[in-house]
Amino acid sequence: MGTASNVSKRKRPRRSRPIVSVLRVGHRAGRDPRLTTHLALAARALGADRMYLEPPDPELSARVASVVRGWGGDFEVVGVDDWKKVVRTTDALVAHLTMYGLPLERVLPRLRRAPKVLLVVGGAKVPPDLYRAADVNVGVGHQPHSEVAAVAVVLDRLLGDPPTGRWPRAARSVVPRARGKKLVEHRGKR
Amino acid sequence: MGTASNVSKRKRPRRSRPIVSVLRVGHRAGRDPRLTTHLALAARALGADRMYLEPPDPELSARVASVVRGWGGDFEVVGVDDWKKVVRTTDALVAHLTMYGLPLERVLPRLRRAPKVLLVVGGAKVPPDLYRAADVNVGVGHQPHSEVAAVAVVLDRLLGDPPTGRWPRAARSVVPRARGKKLVEHRGKR
Repeated sequence: MGTASNVSKRKRPRRSRPIVSVLRVGHRAGRDPRLTTHLALAARALGADRMYLEPPDPELSARVASVVRGWGGDFEVVGVDDWKKVVRTTDALVAHLTMYGLPLERVLPRLRRAPKVLLVVGGAKVPPDLYRAADVNVGVGHQPHSEVAAVAVVLDRLLGDPPTGRWPRAARSVVPRARGKKLVEHRGKR
Repeated sequence: MGTASNVSKRKRPRRSRPIVSVLRVGHRAGRDPRLTTHLALAARALGADRMYLEPPDPELSARVASVVRGWGGDFEVVGVDDWKKVVRTTDALVAHLTMYGLPLERVLPRLRRAPKVLLVVGGAKVPPDLYRAADVNVGVGHQPHSEVAAVAVVLDRLLGDPPTGRWPRAARSVVPRARGKKLVEHRGKR
Protein backbone atom coordinates (compact mmCIF):
# COMPACT_ATOMS: atom_id res chain seq x y z
CA MET A 1 0.00 0.00 0.00
CA GLY A 2 2.87 2.40 -0.72
CA THR A 3 1.83 5.89 -1.65
CA ALA A 4 3.83 7.80 -4.24
CA SER A 5 5.43 9.79 -1.44
CA ASN A 6 6.78 6.91 0.62
CA VAL A 7 7.84 4.96 -2.46
CA SER A 8 9.93 7.92 -3.57
CA LYS A 9 11.63 8.02 -0.19
CA ARG A 10 12.93 4.50 -0.56
CA LYS A 11 16.62 4.23 -1.30
CA ARG A 12 16.04 1.02 -3.30
CA PRO A 13 13.15 -1.27 -4.03
CA ARG A 14 12.44 -3.89 -1.40
CA ARG A 15 14.17 -6.95 -2.71
CA SER A 16 12.53 -10.33 -2.86
CA ARG A 17 14.21 -12.91 -0.71
CA PRO A 18 15.49 -16.23 -1.99
CA ILE A 19 14.35 -19.50 -0.48
CA VAL A 20 17.43 -20.81 1.31
CA SER A 21 18.29 -24.38 2.27
CA VAL A 22 21.43 -25.74 3.89
CA LEU A 23 23.32 -28.93 3.07
CA ARG A 24 25.73 -30.27 5.66
CA VAL A 25 28.23 -32.71 4.15
CA GLY A 26 30.35 -35.11 6.20
CA HIS A 27 28.49 -35.04 9.51
CA ARG A 28 29.89 -37.45 12.08
CA ALA A 29 27.03 -38.51 14.30
CA GLY A 30 29.29 -39.58 17.15
CA ARG A 31 31.47 -36.49 17.16
CA ASP A 32 29.40 -33.59 15.82
CA PRO A 33 25.98 -33.91 17.45
CA ARG A 34 25.96 -30.57 19.26
CA LEU A 35 27.65 -28.60 16.50
CA THR A 36 25.32 -29.96 13.86
CA THR A 37 22.34 -29.31 16.13
CA HIS A 38 23.50 -25.71 16.51
CA LEU A 39 23.87 -25.50 12.74
CA ALA A 40 20.34 -26.78 12.17
CA LEU A 41 18.77 -24.55 14.81
CA ALA A 42 20.64 -21.47 13.58
CA ALA A 43 19.58 -22.25 10.00
CA ARG A 44 15.97 -22.51 11.16
CA ALA A 45 16.03 -19.42 13.39
CA LEU A 46 17.59 -17.27 10.68
CA GLY A 47 15.13 -18.27 7.99
CA ALA A 48 16.33 -21.36 6.10
CA ASP A 49 13.54 -23.72 5.12
CA ARG A 50 15.37 -27.02 5.62
CA MET A 51 18.71 -28.67 6.19
CA TYR A 52 19.91 -31.71 4.27
CA LEU A 53 22.23 -33.84 6.38
CA GLU A 54 24.79 -36.24 4.93
CA PRO A 55 25.02 -38.89 6.20
CA PRO A 56 21.56 -39.07 7.81
CA ASP A 57 21.30 -38.85 11.59
CA PRO A 58 17.76 -39.82 12.60
CA GLU A 59 18.30 -38.87 16.24
CA LEU A 60 19.38 -35.38 15.29
CA SER A 61 16.46 -35.00 12.88
CA ALA A 62 14.11 -36.04 15.67
CA ARG A 63 15.66 -33.59 18.13
CA VAL A 64 15.21 -30.72 15.70
CA ALA A 65 11.66 -31.86 14.85
CA SER A 66 10.84 -31.63 18.53
CA VAL A 67 12.07 -28.01 18.60
CA VAL A 68 9.91 -27.30 15.54
CA ARG A 69 6.86 -28.81 17.27
CA GLY A 70 7.40 -26.47 20.19
CA TRP A 71 8.50 -23.30 18.41
CA GLY A 72 6.64 -23.56 15.11
CA GLY A 73 7.34 -23.26 11.43
CA ASP A 74 8.13 -25.95 8.84
CA PHE A 75 11.87 -26.42 9.16
CA GLU A 76 13.12 -29.99 8.85
CA VAL A 77 16.39 -31.89 8.79
CA VAL A 78 16.33 -34.27 5.83
CA GLY A 79 18.88 -37.08 5.92
CA VAL A 80 20.59 -37.83 2.59
CA ASP A 81 22.94 -40.66 1.65
CA ASP A 82 24.51 -38.92 -1.35
CA TRP A 83 25.29 -35.21 -1.19
CA LYS A 84 26.27 -35.16 -4.86
CA LYS A 85 22.78 -36.14 -5.84
CA VAL A 86 21.33 -33.21 -3.86
CA VAL A 87 23.76 -30.79 -5.52
CA ARG A 88 23.14 -32.26 -8.98
CA THR A 89 19.36 -32.31 -8.81
CA THR A 90 18.60 -29.05 -7.00
CA ASP A 91 17.26 -26.07 -8.93
CA ALA A 92 18.90 -23.76 -6.37
CA LEU A 93 22.11 -21.80 -6.82
CA VAL A 94 24.68 -23.94 -4.99
CA ALA A 95 26.97 -21.83 -2.79
CA HIS A 96 29.71 -23.75 -1.00
CA LEU A 97 30.86 -21.86 2.09
CA THR A 98 34.62 -22.17 2.45
CA MET A 99 37.38 -19.90 3.71
CA TYR A 100 39.09 -20.47 0.35
CA GLY A 101 36.22 -19.05 -1.70
CA LEU A 102 35.46 -15.61 -3.10
CA PRO A 103 34.62 -12.86 -0.60
CA LEU A 104 30.97 -12.87 0.46
CA GLU A 105 30.45 -9.19 -0.40
CA ARG A 106 31.45 -9.95 -3.98
CA VAL A 107 29.12 -12.95 -4.35
CA LEU A 108 26.18 -11.53 -2.40
CA PRO A 109 24.45 -9.76 -5.34
CA ARG A 110 24.39 -13.06 -7.23
CA LEU A 111 22.96 -14.91 -4.22
CA ARG A 112 20.32 -12.21 -3.76
CA ARG A 113 19.18 -12.47 -7.36
CA ALA A 114 18.71 -16.25 -7.17
CA PRO A 115 15.17 -17.47 -6.44
CA LYS A 116 16.63 -20.38 -4.45
CA VAL A 117 19.99 -20.82 -2.76
CA LEU A 118 21.54 -23.99 -1.33
CA LEU A 119 24.29 -23.22 1.19
CA VAL A 120 26.70 -26.14 1.45
CA VAL A 121 29.04 -26.61 4.39
CA GLY A 122 31.55 -29.38 4.84
CA GLY A 123 32.82 -31.01 7.99
CA ALA A 124 36.45 -31.49 8.95
CA LYS A 125 37.30 -33.07 5.61
CA VAL A 126 35.63 -31.36 2.68
CA PRO A 127 35.45 -33.57 -0.41
CA PRO A 128 37.47 -31.85 -3.19
CA ASP A 129 34.60 -32.55 -5.61
CA LEU A 130 32.51 -30.06 -3.69
CA TYR A 131 34.60 -27.12 -4.91
CA ARG A 132 33.83 -28.13 -8.49
CA ALA A 133 30.23 -29.19 -7.97
CA ALA A 134 29.23 -25.83 -6.44
CA ASP A 135 28.08 -22.94 -8.62
CA VAL A 136 30.14 -20.66 -6.43
CA ASN A 137 32.62 -21.01 -3.56
CA VAL A 138 32.14 -18.29 -0.96
CA GLY A 139 34.27 -17.23 1.99
CA VAL A 140 32.76 -15.53 5.04
CA GLY A 141 36.16 -14.08 5.71
CA HIS A 142 39.24 -16.12 4.85
CA GLN A 143 40.16 -17.30 8.30
CA PRO A 144 39.40 -20.65 9.89
CA HIS A 145 36.24 -20.42 11.98
CA SER A 146 32.87 -22.15 12.10
CA GLU A 147 30.26 -23.41 9.68
CA VAL A 148 27.63 -22.29 12.18
CA ALA A 149 28.93 -18.72 12.02
CA ALA A 150 29.31 -18.79 8.24
CA VAL A 151 25.76 -19.99 7.63
CA ALA A 152 24.42 -17.48 10.15
CA VAL A 153 26.13 -14.51 8.50
CA VAL A 154 25.02 -15.49 5.00
CA LEU A 155 21.42 -16.05 6.10
CA ASP A 156 21.38 -12.73 7.91
CA ARG A 157 22.79 -10.90 4.88
CA LEU A 158 20.34 -12.61 2.52
CA LEU A 159 17.18 -12.65 4.59
CA GLY A 160 17.62 -9.87 7.15
CA ASP A 161 15.93 -9.65 10.53
CA PRO A 162 14.30 -12.91 11.56
CA PRO A 163 10.56 -12.71 12.25
CA THR A 164 9.51 -11.79 15.78
CA GLY A 165 6.40 -13.06 17.50
CA ARG A 166 4.79 -16.45 17.34
CA TRP A 167 5.75 -18.70 14.44
CA PRO A 168 3.03 -20.69 12.64
CA ARG A 169 1.66 -23.56 14.76
CA ALA A 170 4.06 -22.77 17.63
CA ALA A 171 3.18 -24.11 21.06
CA ARG A 172 5.18 -21.29 22.62
CA SER A 173 6.82 -18.01 21.81
CA VAL A 174 8.97 -15.35 23.44
CA VAL A 175 7.83 -11.85 24.28
CA PRO A 176 11.02 -9.80 23.87
CA ARG A 177 11.97 -7.93 27.03
CA ALA A 178 14.65 -5.59 28.28
CA ARG A 179 15.16 -7.79 31.39
CA GLY A 180 14.38 -11.38 32.28
CA LYS A 181 12.42 -13.99 30.35
CA LYS A 182 8.85 -13.97 29.15
CA LEU A 183 7.52 -17.07 27.46
CA VAL A 184 3.92 -17.49 26.30
CA GLU A 185 2.37 -20.94 25.94
CA HIS A 186 -0.23 -21.24 23.17
CA ARG A 187 -1.65 -24.65 24.07
CA GLY A 188 -5.11 -25.19 22.68
CA LYS A 189 -4.69 -22.32 20.22
CA ARG A 190 -2.85 -24.18 17.49
CA MET B 1 41.25 12.11 2.07
CA GLY B 2 37.67 12.52 0.80
CA THR B 3 37.11 15.36 -1.66
CA ALA B 4 33.98 17.49 -1.37
CA SER B 5 32.50 15.61 -4.31
CA ASN B 6 32.85 12.10 -2.95
CA VAL B 7 31.85 13.14 0.55
CA SER B 8 28.60 14.54 -0.82
CA LYS B 9 27.86 11.25 -2.57
CA ARG B 10 27.91 9.32 0.66
CA LYS B 11 24.54 8.27 1.98
CA ARG B 12 25.83 8.54 5.54
CA PRO B 13 29.14 9.21 7.21
CA ARG B 14 31.39 6.19 7.56
CA ARG B 15 30.75 5.06 11.08
CA SER B 16 33.52 4.28 13.47
CA ARG B 17 33.51 0.72 14.67
CA PRO B 18 33.40 -0.29 18.30
CA ILE B 19 36.03 -2.54 19.80
CA VAL B 20 34.18 -5.78 20.50
CA SER B 21 35.02 -8.52 22.99
CA VAL B 22 33.12 -11.66 23.84
CA LEU B 23 32.50 -13.22 27.25
CA ARG B 24 31.44 -16.84 27.38
CA VAL B 25 29.85 -17.74 30.72
CA GLY B 26 29.34 -21.30 31.92
CA HIS B 27 31.69 -23.17 29.61
CA ARG B 28 31.92 -26.88 30.39
CA ALA B 29 35.37 -28.01 29.35
CA GLY B 30 34.40 -31.66 29.09
CA ARG B 31 31.26 -31.12 27.09
CA ASP B 32 31.66 -27.92 25.08
CA PRO B 33 35.19 -27.99 23.68
CA ARG B 34 34.28 -27.91 20.00
CA LEU B 35 31.40 -25.49 20.37
CA THR B 36 33.45 -23.07 22.43
CA THR B 37 36.34 -23.41 19.99
CA HIS B 38 33.97 -22.52 17.16
CA LEU B 39 32.74 -19.57 19.20
CA ALA B 40 36.28 -18.32 19.78
CA LEU B 41 37.36 -18.77 16.16
CA ALA B 42 34.22 -17.12 14.81
CA ALA B 43 34.70 -14.21 17.21
CA ARG B 44 38.28 -13.82 15.99
CA ALA B 45 37.49 -14.22 12.28
CA LEU B 46 34.66 -11.69 12.44
CA GLY B 47 36.67 -9.03 14.21
CA ALA B 48 36.42 -9.42 18.00
CA ASP B 49 39.64 -8.62 19.83
CA ARG B 50 39.40 -11.24 22.58
CA MET B 51 37.19 -13.76 24.30
CA TYR B 52 36.90 -14.10 28.07
CA LEU B 53 36.12 -17.67 29.07
CA GLU B 54 34.47 -18.63 32.38
CA PRO B 55 35.60 -20.95 33.80
CA PRO B 56 39.09 -20.94 32.27
CA ASP B 57 40.06 -23.77 29.91
CA PRO B 58 43.82 -23.59 29.35
CA GLU B 59 43.73 -26.29 26.67
CA LEU B 60 41.19 -24.36 24.67
CA SER B 61 43.13 -21.11 25.08
CA ALA B 62 46.24 -22.90 23.83
CA ARG B 63 44.43 -24.34 20.82
CA VAL B 64 43.17 -20.92 19.81
CA ALA B 65 46.61 -19.37 20.43
CA SER B 66 48.04 -21.86 17.99
CA VAL B 67 45.53 -20.75 15.34
CA VAL B 68 46.53 -17.13 16.03
CA ARG B 69 50.22 -18.00 15.59
CA GLY B 70 49.44 -19.46 12.20
CA TRP B 71 46.83 -17.03 10.92
CA GLY B 72 47.87 -13.79 12.57
CA GLY B 73 46.34 -10.99 14.56
CA ASP B 74 46.14 -10.48 18.33
CA PHE B 75 43.05 -12.42 19.35
CA GLU B 76 43.28 -14.29 22.63
CA VAL B 77 41.09 -16.40 24.89
CA VAL B 78 41.46 -15.11 28.44
CA GLY B 79 40.30 -17.47 31.18
CA VAL B 80 38.35 -15.84 34.03
CA ASP B 81 37.16 -17.30 37.32
CA ASP B 82 34.44 -14.73 37.97
CA TRP B 83 32.32 -13.48 35.09
CA LYS B 84 30.63 -10.91 37.33
CA LYS B 85 33.92 -9.20 37.91
CA VAL B 86 34.49 -8.87 34.15
CA VAL B 87 31.01 -7.39 33.67
CA ARG B 88 31.40 -5.06 36.68
CA THR B 89 34.82 -3.72 35.80
CA THR B 90 34.60 -3.38 32.03
CA ASP B 91 34.20 0.05 30.44
CA ALA B 92 32.38 -1.58 27.51
CA LEU B 93 28.64 -1.60 26.90
CA VAL B 94 27.59 -5.05 28.11
CA ALA B 95 25.18 -6.74 25.69
CA HIS B 96 23.89 -10.13 26.81
CA LEU B 97 22.77 -12.17 23.81
CA THR B 98 19.62 -14.10 24.65
CA MET B 99 16.53 -15.14 22.74
CA TYR B 100 14.50 -13.40 25.46
CA GLY B 101 16.05 -9.99 24.85
CA LEU B 102 15.07 -7.00 22.75
CA PRO B 103 15.28 -7.40 18.97
CA LEU B 104 18.78 -6.80 17.58
CA GLU B 105 17.60 -4.25 15.02
CA ARG B 106 16.23 -2.13 17.85
CA VAL B 107 19.42 -2.27 19.95
CA LEU B 108 21.90 -2.02 17.10
CA PRO B 109 22.11 1.81 16.97
CA ARG B 110 23.07 1.83 20.65
CA LEU B 111 25.72 -0.85 20.11
CA ARG B 112 27.12 1.06 17.13
CA ARG B 113 27.47 4.25 19.13
CA ALA B 114 29.43 2.56 21.93
CA PRO B 115 33.23 2.81 21.72
CA LYS B 116 33.49 -0.67 23.23
CA VAL B 117 31.02 -3.54 23.37
CA LEU B 118 31.20 -6.75 25.41
CA LEU B 119 28.98 -9.49 23.97
CA VAL B 120 28.04 -11.98 26.67
CA VAL B 121 26.76 -15.47 25.89
CA GLY B 122 25.71 -18.08 28.39
CA GLY B 123 25.90 -21.83 28.17
CA ALA B 124 23.06 -24.25 28.80
CA LYS B 125 22.21 -22.64 32.14
CA VAL B 126 22.39 -18.88 32.07
CA PRO B 127 22.76 -17.35 35.54
CA PRO B 128 19.68 -15.16 36.18
CA ASP B 129 21.99 -12.40 37.47
CA LEU B 130 23.29 -11.98 33.95
CA TYR B 131 20.00 -10.48 32.75
CA ARG B 132 20.32 -7.79 35.42
CA ALA B 133 24.06 -7.26 35.17
CA ALA B 134 23.96 -6.56 31.43
CA ASP B 135 23.38 -3.05 30.11
CA VAL B 136 21.11 -4.56 27.50
CA ASN B 137 19.65 -7.99 26.69
CA VAL B 138 19.56 -8.61 22.96
CA GLY B 139 17.88 -11.33 20.90
CA VAL B 140 19.21 -12.38 17.51
CA GLY B 141 15.75 -13.60 16.71
CA HIS B 142 13.61 -15.05 19.49
CA GLN B 143 13.99 -18.72 18.67
CA PRO B 144 16.35 -21.22 20.30
CA HIS B 145 19.53 -21.53 18.23
CA SER B 146 23.25 -21.08 18.82
CA GLU B 147 25.55 -18.70 20.63
CA VAL B 148 28.00 -19.14 17.76
CA ALA B 149 25.39 -17.89 15.28
CA ALA B 150 24.26 -15.07 17.55
CA VAL B 151 27.78 -13.73 18.09
CA ALA B 152 28.53 -14.06 14.36
CA VAL B 153 25.47 -12.06 13.31
CA VAL B 154 26.10 -9.28 15.83
CA LEU B 155 29.77 -8.99 14.88
CA ASP B 156 28.88 -8.90 11.21
CA ARG B 157 26.25 -6.21 11.76
CA LEU B 158 28.61 -4.15 13.92
CA LEU B 159 31.89 -4.56 12.10
CA GLY B 160 30.96 -5.50 8.53
CA ASP B 161 33.11 -7.43 6.09
CA PRO B 162 36.08 -9.09 7.76
CA PRO B 163 39.48 -8.09 6.39
CA THR B 164 40.82 -10.07 3.44
CA GLY B 165 44.47 -10.80 2.82
CA ARG B 166 47.22 -11.58 5.26
CA TRP B 167 46.62 -10.68 8.90
CA PRO B 168 49.44 -9.08 10.91
CA ARG B 169 52.24 -11.55 11.70
CA ALA B 170 50.42 -14.42 9.98
CA ALA B 171 52.48 -17.42 8.92
CA ARG B 172 49.90 -18.17 6.23
CA SER B 173 46.98 -16.66 4.41
CA VAL B 174 44.37 -17.59 1.85
CA VAL B 175 44.18 -16.22 -1.67
CA PRO B 176 40.44 -16.22 -2.36
CA ARG B 177 39.53 -18.22 -5.45
CA ALA B 178 36.47 -19.21 -7.43
CA ARG B 179 37.57 -22.90 -7.34
CA GLY B 180 39.87 -24.95 -5.14
CA LYS B 181 42.23 -23.83 -2.40
CA LYS B 182 45.15 -21.46 -2.49
CA LEU B 183 47.19 -21.01 0.64
CA VAL B 184 50.33 -18.86 0.85
CA GLU B 185 53.01 -19.54 3.46
CA HIS B 186 54.85 -16.46 4.71
CA ARG B 187 57.65 -18.17 6.59
CA GLY B 188 60.65 -15.95 7.04
CA LYS B 189 58.61 -12.86 6.23
CA ARG B 190 57.12 -12.26 9.66
